[in-house]
Amino acid sequence: MPLPNGLSAFPITPAEPGGRVDVGALRGLVAPLREAGVDSIGLLGSTGTYPYLSRQERRRAVEAALDEVGARIPILVGVGALRTDEAVALAQDARAMGASAGLLAAVSYTPLTEDEVFAHVVTVARESGLPLCLYDNPGTTHFTFTPALVARLGREPGVIALKSPAPARPDLAAHLAALRAAVPDGFSLGYSGDWHAAEALLAGGDTWYSVMGGLFPHTALAIVRAVRRGDHTAARDLDARLQPLWSLFREFSSLRVMYACAGALGRCRRDPPRPILPLPDFARDRVVQTLRSLELR
Amino acid sequence: MPLPNGLSAFPITPAEPGGRVDVGALRGLVAPLREAGVDSIGLLGSTGTYPYLSRQERRRAVEAALDEVGARIPILVGVGALRTDEAVALAQDARAMGASAGLLAAVSYTPLTEDEVFAHVVTVARESGLPLCLYDNPGTTHFTFTPALVARLGREPGVIALKSPAPARPDLAAHLAALRAAVPDGFSLGYSGDWHAAEALLAGGDTWYSVMGGLFPHTALAIVRAVRRGDHTAARDLDARLQPLWSLFREFSSLRVMYACAGALGRCRRDPPRPILPLPDFARDRVVQTLRSLELR
Repeated sequence: MPLPNGLSAFPITPAEPGGRVDVGALRGLVAPLREAGVDSIGLLGSTGTYPYLSRQERRRAVEAALDEVGARIPILVGVGALRTDEAVALAQDARAMGASAGLLAAVSYTPLTEDEVFAHVVTVARESGLPLCLYDNPGTTHFTFTPALVARLGREPGVIALKSPAPARPDLAAHLAALRAAVPDGFSLGYSGDWHAAEALLAGGDTWYSVMGGLFPHTALAIVRAVRRGDHTAARDLDARLQPLWSLFREFSSLRVMYACAGALGRCRRDPPRPILPLPDFARDRVVQTLRSLELR
Repeated sequence: MPLPNGLSAFPITPAEPGGRVDVGALRGLVAPLREAGVDSIGLLGSTGTYPYLSRQERRRAVEAALDEVGARIPILVGVGALRTDEAVALAQDARAMGASAGLLAAVSYTPLTEDEVFAHVVTVARESGLPLCLYDNPGTTHFTFTPALVARLGREPGVIALKSPAPARPDLAAHLAALRAAVPDGFSLGYSGDWHAAEALLAGGDTWYSVMGGLFPHTALAIVRAVRRGDHTAARDLDARLQPLWSLFREFSSLRVMYACAGALGRCRRDPPRPILPLPDFARDRVVQTLRSLELR
């Protein structure tokens, strides 16, 4: 695949209470991403609740999304799992079905060492042949990819990119510089954490791995395009308008807020997988008010 | 079941690289616990790598252990899972097979709220009918049971006990007092974290949920019996002798060290599930030296 860059849009994965993916609803979320022309789609990311879905259901989700999107837009697929052999199998599935790359988080229960995560990633890359984007998400995995580990992994065949949580602005440039110094030329460095993403792109990040872009691709693309044409003021203005949404993300988690958005807009009536609960009414009311005021699309 | 008290011994769960439980090796670890007369066995705890095993393999482990131990010693079974419906099914399995209680951790990927964990636990208790021991293990689940949440859950039918990580000595008494004030009479409050367990028992904790006791039950029982007969000096002396083992636990994790101990003693030749790696040689050498010097049994 072309290296991840620009807007990678991460939709939720609608599913029945028992864990069966609602492929009709998923197609309904993925089709507008294709039409909007996002640079890639991040299927089964954390917002896509990948760890809560069985291998079979993850296959069904990938199959439906690939069929809906066709070959024009690369699809990155979350292939993380607690066991190395499970992650290998998921990556093999994704490659066999035609996914462009895998997104591999260091999912843990027993806290993992750097050597363990190194061996885990290398095994998945080697056994699957799927190009891998390292997925650094300490908020869910409780493992942090250090620049030293990224440097080791960046030299391994098939490891092509890193998705990091974006630090706040004063630390962003140093974070990105440390990583650039650690990885080979052509390695893609991108960021998640929508509330810092505009600044991460302005600082020179290659990709915005965007939760909001999974439902509102035009709004997210407007920021990406402003950055691309060098209009920092426009990018920051667009980002500033979205502060009420970022506040909701930080207070209630972007996953829960996106389910509430999708529900309020009639785009998906499914709830997140239990034990994760839908937002309580007072929070849902704030989401509805925020959607009204922001005209996201 | 009688409420958990005294020594609850937590063995590792030997398994093949593909995740199939080696029930022969498991029986070989469980039988000496029965013979030593531990107060209960904690099967499929964190040291028993429960999150890394499929529902089918967890059934096989429970079946083998129950068959080996018979009715004399209660078996607590780890029934934690990322999804609520999975935890319900695991608890139903454990109850149908004859386990005495379930050990339910707040396993998370998306960080959970107190209301979410409350609903999760109540659902598992109600749908399974299995008495539950709450399993507070922030080091692996990244969720902390507050005294307020324990108080809410302690009033729910079927929630009978709490397993907490033992704080260090200056904080132990206050920790236990806060929990005692929060729960009804007859609710069992016990501790894990072997290096603080003697002090936790001396402070009035009901149960020691012991990793070391899963392989060396006589050594662990000696501490429990010293506490029971009121001989604090003897309990502290026994604990002090074990400091070299506690140092290894803290440096390399008790799980990895117990696999190394079981391997060095020829009790289990299996490795932990990948991505968890066996200890490197230098650390294994220290384990062997420590075993020689301590005469654990």
